[in-house]
Amino acid sequence: MKIYQTQTAPNPRRVRMYLAEKGIKMEYVEVDILGGENLNASLRAKNPTTKIPFLELDDGTCLGETMAICRYFEELHPENPLMGRTPLEKAQVEMWQRRAEFNSMLPIGMCFQHTTGYFKDRMKPIEAWGIESGKNAQAYLTELNAHLAHSEFLVGDYFSIADITLICAIDFARVVKIRPQEEHKHLLAWHARVSSRASYKA
Amino acid sequence: MKIYQTQTAPNPRRVRMYLAEKGIKMEYVEVDILGGENLNASLRAKNPTTKIPFLELDDGTCLGETMAICRYFEELHPENPLMGRTPLEKAQVEMWQRRAEFNSMLPIGMCFQHTTGYFKDRMKPIEAWGIESGKNAQAYLTELNAHLAHSEFLVGDYFSIADITLICAIDFARVVKIRPQEEHKHLLAWHARVSSRASYKA
Repeated sequence: MKIYQTQTAPNPRRVRMYLAEKGIKMEYVEVDILGGENLNASLRAKNPTTKIPFLELDDGTCLGETMAICRYFEELHPENPLMGRTPLEKAQVEMWQRRAEFNSMLPIGMCFQHTTGYFKDRMKPIEAWGIESGKNAQAYLTELNAHLAHSEFLVGDYFSIADITLICAIDFARVVKIRPQEEHKHLLAWHARVSSRASYKA
Repeated sequence: MKIYQTQTAPNPRRVRMYLAEKGIKMEYVEVDILGGENLNASLRAKNPTTKIPFLELDDGTCLGETMAICRYFEELHPENPLMGRTPLEKAQVEMWQRRAEFNSMLPIGMCFQHTTGYFKDRMKPIEAWGIESGKNAQAYLTELNAHLAHSEFLVGDYFSIADITLICAIDFARVVKIRPQEEHKHLLAWHARVSSRASYKA
């Protein structure tokens, strides 16, 4: 099996960090999304949505969506769980994963797409929305800082896929000049904890 | 335990349909979100994000996020699974659930919030973004129709939480005049199949 991805994009990095934490080796195929390689007929036949990353199984079955790919491996390799260990913890991981996604990754991506024109050949950028999304993403860092004042990771002392989503979002946010500020000391301490893990370099 | 919700909002309806399919009885507490009851100090203490629905457990623990609430019950009550039965099917449900969410529920919600001014006391509506989101949501119905030409439900012949997300999104979309068209015959047939289930009235 192999994963089609783009090395610099934030969502493939989530999958690489997840697989590194699980100790799962993977073959990666680099796709030039800026050049539109993902829109080519051969890749579109495998992956009609054209989004990366996607996983191709040995029988040709393709799976898209970062969290769906990670879910597949979590089910196949339950050891060293990153999606929770009890029903409540699984729900809490899902809750924080979604908050990291909807309040960080998504508005940061919107800010990037709507203010830089990166994909302007395939979407209609609306600059006012990009700017507003960026403000919302920056403001959410203060909420995260407050949460992390009482919590080593997003879900208590349990490192999870929610932390992976968040750090990939925050690191990507630098390209649109959104970043934790000096006063976000709990968020910065969390960043130092997560970035000291070997998986951070995946 | 109880769930705080608003009867007419689309995300609480996802939880109600899910629990009806699982046969789980629940106490619901109605919250007037338009009137800002969710912003009151007493509810904010339980649910700092102010988003509904949220679940309050008997020990006072609160869980937000539709999918996190459903995940909690799926783990506690694995019988009649709605999130997949095998690793691959679980991943496919997660993939289609996310597509229904990111390509239908989310842009439909954006269209609603940014064109109607429903929450203009607590966010900055950007009409151009609302209109563009509505166009994208309408266009995605054609992709869904093509997928459902070969599939009884979003994941083959297996009814799942992905179908619940999609029907709640599509039904809510009527308020912003987004709806399946006559030529979307596969999508309309799917809608007839899902809306004939007892859970549809939950």
